Amino acid sequence: MSVTAREIRLASRPSGWPTDENFAFADVELPSPGAGELLVRNTFMSVDPYMRGRMNDVKSYTPPYELGKALEGGAVGEVVESGVDGVAPGDLVLHGLGWRSHALVSEYTALTPIAGVSPSHFLGALGMPALTAYVGLLDIAEFKQGDTVFVSGAAGAVGSLAGQFARLKGAGRVIGSAGSADKVAHLTNKLGFDAAFNYRDGDVRELLADAAPDGIEVYFDNVGGDHLEAAIAALNTNGRVAVCGSISMYNEKEPPPGPHNMHLLVGKRLKLQGFIILDHYDRFRAMAEEVGQWLATGKLVAEETFADGLDNAPAAFLGMLRGENTGKMVVRL
Amino acid sequence: MSVTAREIRLASRPSGWPTDENFAFADVELPSPGAGELLVRNTFMSVDPYMRGRMNDVKSYTPPYELGKALEGGAVGEVVESGVDGVAPGDLVLHGLGWRSHALVSEYTALTPIAGVSPSHFLGALGMPALTAYVGLLDIAEFKQGDTVFVSGAAGAVGSLAGQFARLKGAGRVIGSAGSADKVAHLTNKLGFDAAFNYRDGDVRELLADAAPDGIEVYFDNVGGDHLEAAIAALNTNGRVAVCGSISMYNEKEPPPGPHNMHLLVGKRLKLQGFIILDHYDRFRAMAEEVGQWLATGKLVAEETFADGLDNAPAAFLGMLRGENTGKMVVRL
Repeated sequence: MSVTAREIRLASRPSGWPTDENFAFADVELPSPGAGELLVRNTFMSVDPYMRGRMNDVKSYTPPYELGKALEGGAVGEVVESGVDGVAPGDLVLHGLGWRSHALVSEYTALTPIAGVSPSHFLGALGMPALTAYVGLLDIAEFKQGDTVFVSGAAGAVGSLAGQFARLKGAGRVIGSAGSADKVAHLTNKLGFDAAFNYRDGDVRELLADAAPDGIEVYFDNVGGDHLEAAIAALNTNGRVAVCGSISMYNEKEPPPGPHNMHLLVGKRLKLQGFIILDHYDRFRAMAEEVGQWLATGKLVAEETFADGLDNAPAAFLGMLRGENTGKMVVRL
Repeated sequence: MSVTAREIRLASRPSGWPTDENFAFADVELPSPGAGELLVRNTFMSVDPYMRGRMNDVKSYTPPYELGKALEGGAVGEVVESGVDGVAPGDLVLHGLGWRSHALVSEYTALTPIAGVSPSHFLGALGMPALTAYVGLLDIAEFKQGDTVFVSGAAGAVGSLAGQFARLKGAGRVIGSAGSADKVAHLTNKLGFDAAFNYRDGDVRELLADAAPDGIEVYFDNVGGDHLEAAIAALNTNGRVAVCGSISMYNEKEPPPGPHNMHLLVGKRLKLQGFIILDHYDRFRAMAEEVGQWLATGKLVAEETFADGLDNAPAAFLGMLRGENTGKMVVRL
């Protein structure tokens, strides 16, 4: 059996914000899978901030996308035809060949569906974003019960989990920032944040000081820029920062100025640490067990924003970069 | 017995660089020591960068100096009269009441003189600066054998020790920066640095890239500002920064801009950590044993710049802030 797969390719490298012209659609014939391969029909694909970086022709922790080739990214799919003993048509797998309707995969993770939990969560609350939130909070920022935790980009895929994980692990107080009044209301009304603010409402430093009058112990940084400066000002002695990303600058041609208060690292004994989740898959099982429990018992609110159809994937990707999603942005195929 | 002690007081708080007007000399009568006290004649006193911070009326990790009161700081002295069993006149002690000819002390560390080693080293290569270099390099920056280490302020009290400790512990390469051609020559000719540069010679980022073509694993930061940005650019994956101080800005009224490349913390998985040596005195014994060996066997070059007489202490302090010392600045009384 062969199938016609539709895929999205990188037509040209964006300078600044991507546009439609950077993407091209193409149909390709996929043969039957060879030994060790699976032919998979993708049912959900992920759009994530790191993908913007891979569109540039620069060396980074993952290689750049190649011009004229299909884009890649996390996807959940159903096996159509199997070249692997023990894997049957209809089985569910997680793999790295998203941005296409079907894929021939040789690297994948077999998934066990959880009753009442959408398989799309393996791209979010039980997937890479969850592992990022879990490792960032617990291992990098060394979260301890009672800590006051500030999360930026708190309505995003990683941020909404980081804040909730802090709450579920016994934080003293959880504070989030986001880019609209709706998102802010959502954080406090639905996700159980103790306080939240819209960073467009004024000076981030003042907004954070109002929300955290006694300071913070942990900052989970999804944003960079002025948020990091504000967090350094608010951190108490021995505070820790997990530097997870700088979504605010992925499309900027000039890097923003750094924090003006780096000297506070000394007197306050602060630690700032960047991390890449690829290094931490040894923590996946611990995360999945603990978070799976929270999901199954309804303690964790795992939000998703869906876009429908492969043709809408570029728009979903841009919308995610602009912050139009609440929780994980997923394309439903 | 009572003695007339001469002391230096904080007459007014400096704004920017201190001047003579900020200091006042006074004579006070000290009585015989009570029980638990020692009357000490100071023989050496330390001038250190952190003292500038204590001249400001701001909350910090040490309380500010009080107006009209004598300044404080590390000192080595000889017991003149003892109110403590087991301590006799002539014994040597380390204590915190410098900036005066004599002191009545109740908190002190008894010192055992080392043959051929000046007691002034207990203010430097065997004292607080040594502990700062030792803890910063080994515990905060997690130095490992083979690492390439960059030290800024490398001709200073802490920096000259940090670079040599790295060499003696098996660094792959040790690079230093300093503020004059003489100091740079000294680092490579006398202290065993593999490379050094004068940061006034050009763009620190380019100077460091030339000195460390394969990048660095550890940065020991005594300076802040553009050096930190240059180090972030040069650090290899999993690099670590011990943030020890920002002498470049202690007298600035406006904080300098922060590093423009903080986003590199993520992809390179960098750690930046500030520390205060007061938290780490549990490491004093380990440091003193290891460093004492290096000193006794001549493997460590422990330099001192001496100023003579209490009257010259303010000038010595200012000279240290301006970088006129090579190695530890000590006032000989």
